[in-house]
Amino acid sequence: MWNGTHGGDIYRNRVELDFSVNVNPLGMPEAVEAALHEAVEDCRNYPDIRAEKLKQAVGRMQQVSPEKLLFGNGASELFMAIVHGIKPKKTIIPVPSFYGYEYAAGASEGEIIYYETKEEDDFCLREDFLSVLTKDVGLLFLANPNNPAGNLMSREELRRILCRCRENGIGVVLDECFIEFCGRECSMLGEIDEFPDLMLVRAFTKSFSIPGVRLGYLACSHPPLLRKISRQLPEWNISAFAQAAGCACAGQTGLIEKTAAYVRKERQYLEEGLRRLGFRVFPGSACFLLLYCEWPLYDRLLERGILIRDCENFRGLEKGFYRIAVKRRKENEVLLKAIGEIKWEIESGWSVCSRRK
Amino acid sequence: MWNGTHGGDIYRNRVELDFSVNVNPLGMPEAVEAALHEAVEDCRNYPDIRAEKLKQAVGRMQQVSPEKLLFGNGASELFMAIVHGIKPKKTIIPVPSFYGYEYAAGASEGEIIYYETKEEDDFCLREDFLSVLTKDVGLLFLANPNNPAGNLMSREELRRILCRCRENGIGVVLDECFIEFCGRECSMLGEIDEFPDLMLVRAFTKSFSIPGVRLGYLACSHPPLLRKISRQLPEWNISAFAQAAGCACAGQTGLIEKTAAYVRKERQYLEEGLRRLGFRVFPGSACFLLLYCEWPLYDRLLERGILIRDCENFRGLEKGFYRIAVKRRKENEVLLKAIGEIKWEIESGWSVCSRRK
Repeated sequence: MWNGTHGGDIYRNRVELDFSVNVNPLGMPEAVEAALHEAVEDCRNYPDIRAEKLKQAVGRMQQVSPEKLLFGNGASELFMAIVHGIKPKKTIIPVPSFYGYEYAAGASEGEIIYYETKEEDDFCLREDFLSVLTKDVGLLFLANPNNPAGNLMSREELRRILCRCRENGIGVVLDECFIEFCGRECSMLGEIDEFPDLMLVRAFTKSFSIPGVRLGYLACSHPPLLRKISRQLPEWNISAFAQAAGCACAGQTGLIEKTAAYVRKERQYLEEGLRRLGFRVFPGSACFLLLYCEWPLYDRLLERGILIRDCENFRGLEKGFYRIAVKRRKENEVLLKAIGEIKWEIESGWSVCSRRK
Repeated sequence: MWNGTHGGDIYRNRVELDFSVNVNPLGMPEAVEAALHEAVEDCRNYPDIRAEKLKQAVGRMQQVSPEKLLFGNGASELFMAIVHGIKPKKTIIPVPSFYGYEYAAGASEGEIIYYETKEEDDFCLREDFLSVLTKDVGLLFLANPNNPAGNLMSREELRRILCRCRENGIGVVLDECFIEFCGRECSMLGEIDEFPDLMLVRAFTKSFSIPGVRLGYLACSHPPLLRKISRQLPEWNISAFAQAAGCACAGQTGLIEKTAAYVRKERQYLEEGLRRLGFRVFPGSACFLLLYCEWPLYDRLLERGILIRDCENFRGLEKGFYRIAVKRRKENEVLLKAIGEIKWEIESGWSVCSRRK
């Protein structure tokens, strides 16, 4: 059994229900699906090298002027371009967090400093975090809410960090890939003009449930910084499919609000169910939950065709941490029932489920 | 009127016939179109981060072992990753050639040396080219056939260059994006094991007429070099669409041969037609032709809704060079007729076509 760096390895596991990937449980909007089918025709041509329509559409959607936006073949491409553009001598990454920051930072030669958050703080940053943001730091990767704990920083806390970085000339990647599940009001998108070193990254993957398309974007108010990053992106990096899907996503008014409400309700349902089963569940605000469990939960669920994220390989975590996506009620019920059965099996020494290979 | 760095700007021109982009005139194969429609369903999941099926399929198609292949979001992404992976202190680029080499090389800090080929040599490399391949050179970009002149190097000439590079430890990017229009037998793919510094780049864009999809690949026999380049590629860089299209393309046996024969015939037809009209046409082997013309051919054709590639902005070329794609017979006829009319207008001082804005 292979348990890779990321969740979602449905290609090398027999999976009926995938709780390892954190996308919108409401699924891909119909208009986006239709736009993708239409784009098959468009791909006889080169995609627009300037992605003008997409820029305009996302600018309108997010009320950001289009020239402050830059698009990537997924947020992952933007992280890489940021590192190549800035070439930081020293990069700070709080952990546990998304492996992609470490991967991107490691593509350049600078030093990486990992700031460890603690289980007893629910993996939140401590007050002493500001003291590591010194003048010799070139880049900081920050996610709000963070993954895998799902903890959301307050606007005040974030602004304190951003002010400190502005004082010390530190570039800040603020990954808001999951912010739309918490509610738009939590975003810093409206404040990018105040912080020229802020590179706010968003993706369509999670909010619109299209991880196979690859489309992320970056908002930044400082033209020289944007140019530096843009210069590190390959030409025609945004496929005809990504451009079409992005335009269709931008037209989905109301979906974000509906999703945030749905996810809040289902997250609560899952959280209560898991707590009732006796697990420690961390207080998350996104479309997933981190929990601690002493049994081999990953293997036992996979035997039942359910894939979750074993977080043992997250830097700063250890054996026993698992991340579970918030899905639709029916799927969440199946998961809770399966975990309940496993608990009974383990505690009673019996096997309810006949093992499949 | 905007005349950008590349051809194909159908987004900012009113274009009925696009002769500026060099793709397979036979169009996108039906099986590829069907695979792209099916992929809309797949893009609810992350694409396979290891692109295993694609690797196997292309390996079989090209008779290269899959572990020697690396896939990119278009050849452009691979050029960039090569430069970031090798960080050459000095890069050699023969010109005129595809702007993408210069763009990629310029993303890193090394020096770029342009080797100018001459009009009187039909833009072929001269014997003295070997003498610029010295030990201090880190990387060489080479295309066979080259773009925009379309000239094809012989196997002997190429091997002389590759041997010299091997002696002097120079990495060689050999761009074979257009080789399939010349015939498979012209490729160096079967010889990559002899040259560990050789990075042979191919794309699906041209051969299968899917520029909007973004899919290129690299073949290299030297695992440490492959790893260096791979480390510079973002995770999940190959979309669900690209993986599906690539697998479908790999199954198109016979199409490459059919295309090469068709293109040869049509190129000859266009070449003769253009010569008959009095132009200097360079002897090309690919799916396009370079010609020289003293009138403002680009503007006059665009007035008629026909877009060609004005090559004035190619490094090493000047005003008066134009590149024309080889398309289907009917389209080629339209082009020749339009050029004939323009010639008559200019020479007689009359206007046949009522100008549109």
